[in-house]
Amino acid sequence: MAIVLGPNRYGKAETRLVRVVRDGDTHTLADLNVSVALSGDLAATHLTGDNAGVLPTDTMKNTVYAFAKEHGVAEPEEFGLLLARHFVTTQPQVSAARVALESYGWSRLGPHSFRRDGACTRTATVTVTANAAQVVSGVSGLVLLNTTASEFHGFPRDRYTTLPETTDRILATAVDARWRHRSADAGWAASFAGAVEAMTTAFVRTYSHSLQQTLFSMGSRVLETRPEIAEIRLALPNKHHYLVDLSPFGLANDNEVFIAGDRPYGLIEGTVTRDDVPPADAEWYR
Amino acid sequence: MAIVLGPNRYGKAETRLVRVVRDGDTHTLADLNVSVALSGDLAATHLTGDNAGVLPTDTMKNTVYAFAKEHGVAEPEEFGLLLARHFVTTQPQVSAARVALESYGWSRLGPHSFRRDGACTRTATVTVTANAAQVVSGVSGLVLLNTTASEFHGFPRDRYTTLPETTDRILATAVDARWRHRSADAGWAASFAGAVEAMTTAFVRTYSHSLQQTLFSMGSRVLETRPEIAEIRLALPNKHHYLVDLSPFGLANDNEVFIAGDRPYGLIEGTVTRDDVPPADAEWYR
Amino acid sequence: MAIVLGPNRYGKAETRLVRVVRDGDTHTLADLNVSVALSGDLAATHLTGDNAGVLPTDTMKNTVYAFAKEHGVAEPEEFGLLLARHFVTTQPQVSAARVALESYGWSRLGPHSFRRDGACTRTATVTVTANAAQVVSGVSGLVLLNTTASEFHGFPRDRYTTLPETTDRILATAVDARWRHRSADAGWAASFAGAVEAMTTAFVRTYSHSLQQTLFSMGSRVLETRPEIAEIRLALPNKHHYLVDLSPFGLANDNEVFIAGDRPYGLIEGTVTRDDVPPADAEWYR
Amino acid sequence: MAIVLGPNRYGKAETRLVRVVRDGDTHTLADLNVSVALSGDLAATHLTGDNAGVLPTDTMKNTVYAFAKEHGVAEPEEFGLLLARHFVTTQPQVSAARVALESYGWSRLGPHSFRRDGACTRTATVTVTANAAQVVSGVSGLVLLNTTASEFHGFPRDRYTTLPETTDRILATAVDARWRHRSADAGWAASFAGAVEAMTTAFVRTYSHSLQQTLFSMGSRVLETRPEIAEIRLALPNKHHYLVDLSPFGLANDNEVFIAGDRPYGLIEGTVTRDDVPPADAEWYR
Repeated sequence: MAIVLGPNRYGKAETRLVRVVRDGDTHTLADLNVSVALSGDLAATHLTGDNAGVLPTDTMKNTVYAFAKEHGVAEPEEFGLLLARHFVTTQPQVSAARVALESYGWSRLGPHSFRRDGACTRTATVTVTANAAQVVSGVSGLVLLNTTASEFHGFPRDRYTTLPETTDRILATAVDARWRHRSADAGWAASFAGAVEAMTTAFVRTYSHSLQQTLFSMGSRVLETRPEIAEIRLALPNKHHYLVDLSPFGLANDNEVFIAGDRPYGLIEGTVTRDDVPPADAEWYR
Repeated sequence: MAIVLGPNRYGKAETRLVRVVRDGDTHTLADLNVSVALSGDLAATHLTGDNAGVLPTDTMKNTVYAFAKEHGVAEPEEFGLLLARHFVTTQPQVSAARVALESYGWSRLGPHSFRRDGACTRTATVTVTANAAQVVSGVSGLVLLNTTASEFHGFPRDRYTTLPETTDRILATAVDARWRHRSADAGWAASFAGAVEAMTTAFVRTYSHSLQQTLFSMGSRVLETRPEIAEIRLALPNKHHYLVDLSPFGLANDNEVFIAGDRPYGLIEGTVTRDDVPPADAEWYR
Repeated sequence: MAIVLGPNRYGKAETRLVRVVRDGDTHTLADLNVSVALSGDLAATHLTGDNAGVLPTDTMKNTVYAFAKEHGVAEPEEFGLLLARHFVTTQPQVSAARVALESYGWSRLGPHSFRRDGACTRTATVTVTANAAQVVSGVSGLVLLNTTASEFHGFPRDRYTTLPETTDRILATAVDARWRHRSADAGWAASFAGAVEAMTTAFVRTYSHSLQQTLFSMGSRVLETRPEIAEIRLALPNKHHYLVDLSPFGLANDNEVFIAGDRPYGLIEGTVTRDDVPPADAEWYR
Repeated sequence: MAIVLGPNRYGKAETRLVRVVRDGDTHTLADLNVSVALSGDLAATHLTGDNAGVLPTDTMKNTVYAFAKEHGVAEPEEFGLLLARHFVTTQPQVSAARVALESYGWSRLGPHSFRRDGACTRTATVTVTANAAQVVSGVSGLVLLNTTASEFHGFPRDRYTTLPETTDRILATAVDARWRHRSADAGWAASFAGAVEAMTTAFVRTYSHSLQQTLFSMGSRVLETRPEIAEIRLALPNKHHYLVDLSPFGLANDNEVFIAGDRPYGLIEGTVTRDDVPPADAEWYR
C-alpha cells in the first residue's frame, strides 16, 4: 500500500475586473469575477516542493488584467476561452485550464453613468408615541458608478500621504439613504420614486471633486424636489476601483482596466437638512 | 452608587410576510420584512421577571400577519403606521412603538407570475485541453414566483407524512442553471438571453403538479428553442411559502397571507438532455 | 433527436435540528443541519406530474425530527446512515439516499448551559476630541444557551395572542454587547476578559422569567464586578427553539427535539448603567 | 428656508491589518479590522469641492499600517486611542476622530503557528444504495497560519509574471477537507478528531515551498495515522497576506505588517489517496 497524489488543480480565484471601453464620451462597462484553475503534471510541487511547473497564481491574475486590455472583454464565454487557451498553449506542463466567470450587469444612466442591476431594498421606519408619529423612508443597495467626471486633488498631505492627485477616476458607491418626512401623511410611493430619481440624477449630473460634494448634491436635489421631506442622511461607501499597472507587460492603461476593491473602502456620511424643520425624535439617530 | 436600568425596548425582528391580493385572475404581491420594537415601563420584567407588561413578541408577529389580512399592505410606511399606532393605543404600558420595514420589489411576468427585482448573475465555465474546449453558461439568482397554478398531491404517505394535499399553493424558486453548449462557438449574448427567456416563459406557463415537472418543462423549453445547447442542469430550491393560520383571530386566509420561509427548503435538481449529444468532460460535474 | 430526463434527485435541505438529552439535571446537546436527497425512478413526476413516487420533502423533515427522538443523535455519520438506510429500505422507488450533515459544536458551561464554539469578535470604539476621549469596548457573536431554567408566563394577552405559557424552555442568544469605560485608561485585556466572564456567568446562573431579566442580570454583574465600566448596552436576540410536535408519529417530546429557528427572532435591547456616571458623548449611540 | 449641511463625517472603513512581532523564533500575532472616521469643518468639500481640509482616506489607511509598525498593536483600545489622538492633534481641521476596531483571536499552535479562534464545522455526507453505503466526513472553516517557514520560488516566469521570489512569507489557509472512509463502520468521533489533529500537525510541521506541498503533507499524515480513511480531498485557499510598503514613511517592514487580503486568493485543490482502495461512488465528486 502506498499513499499517492490523486486529481489536483490550482489557480487564482475571484480576480475582480472592471473593464471600461471609451468611445469618445460614451463609455461601456464590463464587470467580472474571474477564477482560473490549471491542471497538469504537478506531482513535483506536491511531493518535493519543486515549483518548476507552477506558474504563479499571481501571474494568472496579471494575465486576466493584461488580456482585458489587449483583447477587451466582449462576452464572458469568449474571454474565458481566450484565457484558457492561452494557458494550455503557452505552458507545456498545463494539460487543462478551467476558467469560471461571473458577470454582473449594469444599466446605462448616461454616456458614462451606470446603475448596477439588482434590487435596491426600500425601507421605512415608523415611530409612534401617544402624541407624535415620525416616518423615515429609505433605500439601500442602489449601486451607481460614473466612469469619469470625478477628480480628487487639493487635499492636505502629511507624512503618511502617498495618494497621487487625480483628475479622472471612477466614482462608485452603494447608496444607503434615509429621509425623514415632515408629516405622517404623504404619497409614499411617489415620494420614494421621486427621492430615488433625485439621488440618481444628481449622481449622474454632478461633476465631482469629492464624494462629499456628490453626497451634498444628491441630498440637496432630494430636498429641492420633494417638499414633503424634511431632511436626509446618506452613507456612501467610496467603492474604490484601482487602476492596474500594466506597464510591466508593455501596455498602457488609459483608465480602462480596474481592480474592483472590496476592502478597505471610504465611507462618507452626511446629513442634508433644512434650516426650518423641527428636530427629529431619537429614533432618527438609530 | 446604584446600578439602574437605562433605555430599553424589545420586540419581534424580521417577520417575513408575503401578502397576495387576488383580483380575479390578476394577483398582486407585497413582500416585506417587518421588525417591531416597543418601549414603555418595562422595569418589572428586567428587575423581577414580572411579565404583566410584556406583550409577547409572538403576539407582535401574529399582529403583523392578521393586519396584513385585515388592512392589506399598501405602502410600507402606511402599514408601519397602522401597526405602530395599534400597539401604542391598545397597550397601556407601551409609550412608543417603532416599526421598521424592508420591502422587496417584484416585477410582473403575467397575471399571477412575478420575478423578484435584483440581479441574476451570468456565469460561464470554460474548460480547455489540448484537443477540446467545453463551454458551460449559466445563471444564478433568478427568483420566480407564481401565486397560483401550482398543486401538490397524489404523493405516497408513510408513518411520518403529515403534509396535506393541496390544489393551490405558491410556487417560488431561485433558479440556478448551467447549460452546456454543443460547441465553443456560439452567439453568447443571444444564447444567454434566450435561455433565460425560455426558462422564465416555461415557469410562467407551466401549470405545475410538482416543482420537478416545472424543472423539466424549463429545461425542455431551453433545449427546444436553443439548438446550440446540448444539455442543461437545474437546481431549484422550493422556496416554501407557508399559509398563516388566522383562524384564532376569527379571520379567513384564502391564500392571501404567507410566511416566506428561510429554512428548510426543498431542493430539486435535475438534468434535461438530448439523446444524441456526446458526453461532457468531467468539469461538467463540478 | 429527443429531449430526455438526465440524472436527478430531490429532497429537503437544511433542516435545523437541536436534540437535547436530559440525564437528570445534566443535559447534552446536538446541533445539526440536515439535508436529504433521494434519487430513483422519478420520471413520472418530471414528465407528467404524477407524484406517486415522490415522498414529500416535508416527510423527510418530519423523519429527521422523529428519528432524533427515537434513535438519538450520537455522531453525525451514524445519524446520517440511519436516515439514508431508512429511505432506501422503506421507499421502493428510492434507489439511493444521500444525507449531508453539518454539526456545530458547543462547549459545556454548566449542567444545562452551553456556549457555541466559534469566535466572538472583540470590538473597541474610541472617540477623541480636543478635550476628551471615550472608550467603548464590546463583544459580538458570543452564543449562549440554557436547555432549561427558563420560563415565560404571566404576560398580557390580547386578540392576537396565541402563545402558550411555558415553565420550561430553551433560552438562547447571541450576545452583542458594548460597554463604556469610565476613563481612557484601563487594563483593557483584563477588562474584556472580565466583562465576558461576568456576562457568561450571569447567563448561566440566572433562573430566567424573561430574556429581559437575564439581560439586566448580565449587565448588572458586569457593573458589579468591573468598577472601570460606566455602563453597558446589550442587544440580545431571542434565538427561538421551537418544540417539534411529534404526536402525529405517536411520540412524546419532553423538551428533547427542537427546531432552531432563523427568523423571526425576538430582540431585547437594554442599557444597564450607574446612577453616578457622567453622560456619554453622542458616539455612544451609534 | 434654506438647504444646509447637517452632521457629517468621513473616513476609511475596514482596513485589514495583521501585525507580527518576532521575538526570535517565537512570534505573536494581532489581527484587526480598523475603521477611521473624522469630523470637523468639512463644509467646503461638500459645498464647493474644495478639499483643502480633506485628509485622504488613503492616508488614514497608511497611518494604520505605519502606526502598527511604529507603535505595535497591543490592545485594540490602546491602538485606537493612539490613532484617534494622532488625527485630532495633527489635523487642525479635525475636531473629532472615531476609530472602531474589530479584533480576531488566534490560538498558538507552535512558536510561529496559529489557529484562528472560531468554530470549524464538522460535516458528514452519507450515501446509501441497496447494496452499498459510503461515508465521507469533513471539516470546513479551520483557519491555520504560519508566520514563517514558508517560501515560494523556482517557479516559471512568462511575460505576465511580476511576482518576486520569496524565502519568507506568511502561509495561511482555511481548510476545507473531506475524507472518505473505507467502511460504514468506524469510531466516528475519534476519527474526526484524529483527522483534524493530523492536518493541523502537518500544517505546523511542514517547512513549505508551496501550498501544494503543505496540502500533500496534510493529506498524507491523515492517511498515515488513520487507517480507516481511504482518501482525502483538500481545498485550500491561499489567504494572501501582503507585505505593506512602509518605505515612503521611512520605515522598514521586516515581515511585520501585513494586509490581510480578501480577493483574489489562490485556491489549491488536491486529493491524497491510497493505491489499494476501491473507487468511490459518484457522490464523492460533489
